Amino acid sequence: MSEQDLDDLKRELREFARARDWEQFHSPKNLSMALSVEAGELVEHFQWVTEEQSTRLDAEKHAAVASEMADIFIFLLRLADRLEVNLMEATRHKITLNHQRYPEDKVKGSSKKYNEYK
Amino acid sequence: MSEQDLDDLKRELREFARARDWEQFHSPKNLSMALSVEAGELVEHFQWVTEEQSTRLDAEKHAAVASEMADIFIFLLRLADRLEVNLMEATRHKITLNHQRYPEDKVKGSSKKYNEYK
Amino acid sequence: MSEQDLDDLKRELREFARARDWEQFHSPKNLSMALSVEAGELVEHFQWVTEEQSTRLDAEKHAAVASEMADIFIFLLRLADRLEVNLMEATRHKITLNHQRYPEDKVKGSSKKYNEYK
Amino acid sequence: MSEQDLDDLKRELREFARARDWEQFHSPKNLSMALSVEAGELVEHFQWVTEEQSTRLDAEKHAAVASEMADIFIFLLRLADRLEVNLMEATRHKITLNHQRYPEDKVKGSSKKYNEYK
Repeated sequence: MSEQDLDDLKRELREFARARDWEQFHSPKNLSMALSVEAGELVEHFQWVTEEQSTRLDAEKHAAVASEMADIFIFLLRLADRLEVNLMEATRHKITLNHQRYPEDKVKGSSKKYNEYK
Repeated sequence: MSEQDLDDLKRELREFARARDWEQFHSPKNLSMALSVEAGELVEHFQWVTEEQSTRLDAEKHAAVASEMADIFIFLLRLADRLEVNLMEATRHKITLNHQRYPEDKVKGSSKKYNEYK
Repeated sequence: MSEQDLDDLKRELREFARARDWEQFHSPKNLSMALSVEAGELVEHFQWVTEEQSTRLDAEKHAAVASEMADIFIFLLRLADRLEVNLMEATRHKITLNHQRYPEDKVKGSSKKYNEYK
Repeated sequence: MSEQDLDDLKRELREFARARDWEQFHSPKNLSMALSVEAGELVEHFQWVTEEQSTRLDAEKHAAVASEMADIFIFLLRLADRLEVNLMEATRHKITLNHQRYPEDKVKGSSKKYNEYK
């Protein structure tokens, strides 16, 4: 994901909000709430199905899930724009950190959190 | 964000999970839970601050928030990988839909949901 | 749960907040955020375990889960206090509504939402 | 809230689930997801309003919020039933712990988390 491409999408979403005079609502606080609401709508699609069923969604459900994922990404980009967070840089940094926190030989096959290892 | 770049990041995260034998835990159901947990950790940074305070975070808080955003993006990409969802395509589609649902002249300055308009 | 008992607990939590000058932070908006953050902490305990494993938690995990449930209940009662919502009355009303929405013969063994039935 | 009253409500909700053959869906894992989904629906009512606006909801919004709070309480009680958690006892225990974690003179007027104090 080139930062240029990411900036283009952020700019498009910013213009969409500005054209509707919605930036007054888009404080980081409110955007974090909106993102969590969309995360809840994503979870709703999976709450009563088994893990196995969640791997083979029918076309209608798959489209609905993709739509919730898009909403989450949109609010994540809006928040990155308002807070001037470089999402790609932050993600690269986190992946590097995870390599240190979760060395293969130590965590293989375990779902423990990094601070739960002795 | 070129789809090629996005595919590279998805592949890197897939390899990270495979090398740790974590794909057994990464069902779409579980990944939706993990994403919502990270969304909650994002909200935690904003729950007691005012909207105005949320626009000017100190360096430490800003870095912590960026780190939570990265976690959300990582699980969003893992989920897109497991469900074979084209996140960019889904986002472009949603933005187009939002242009239809929220015509400027109709929604200007209003935070109502598209289905709340008479 | 007698409403008297519920009022006692709400009053105790209100006094706890007042004694710490915390009511300034406890707007319904902020309390809804805090409740959702605690819900995320609850989900975190279950995100990587199977449904079967979630039915038999070890003592330490069971205590941690009970503690998150208490946090959720505390913020739910704080919100009920701030909004003057009668939680017992609202719950009784919802159960009655659910009896109408989900008649036994119609929904038996199905996890569909009431508005998904033809 | 007498434990007897609480047990009555838990039993009523258990019977409601059993009569619909829904206990198969009500694993602690799934109930934690359902609770978090309802928490998201609660937050949705507050995401674009100011803290001040959240203190004075119109009758329709107030009823909708009370309904979401009831859903959260219902899933919290279902989870307490499935995990055999004594919600009142856990809440009393947490309140006692909070008195120790947040001594009045130390935290007055501050929204810091107990582990953020020097």
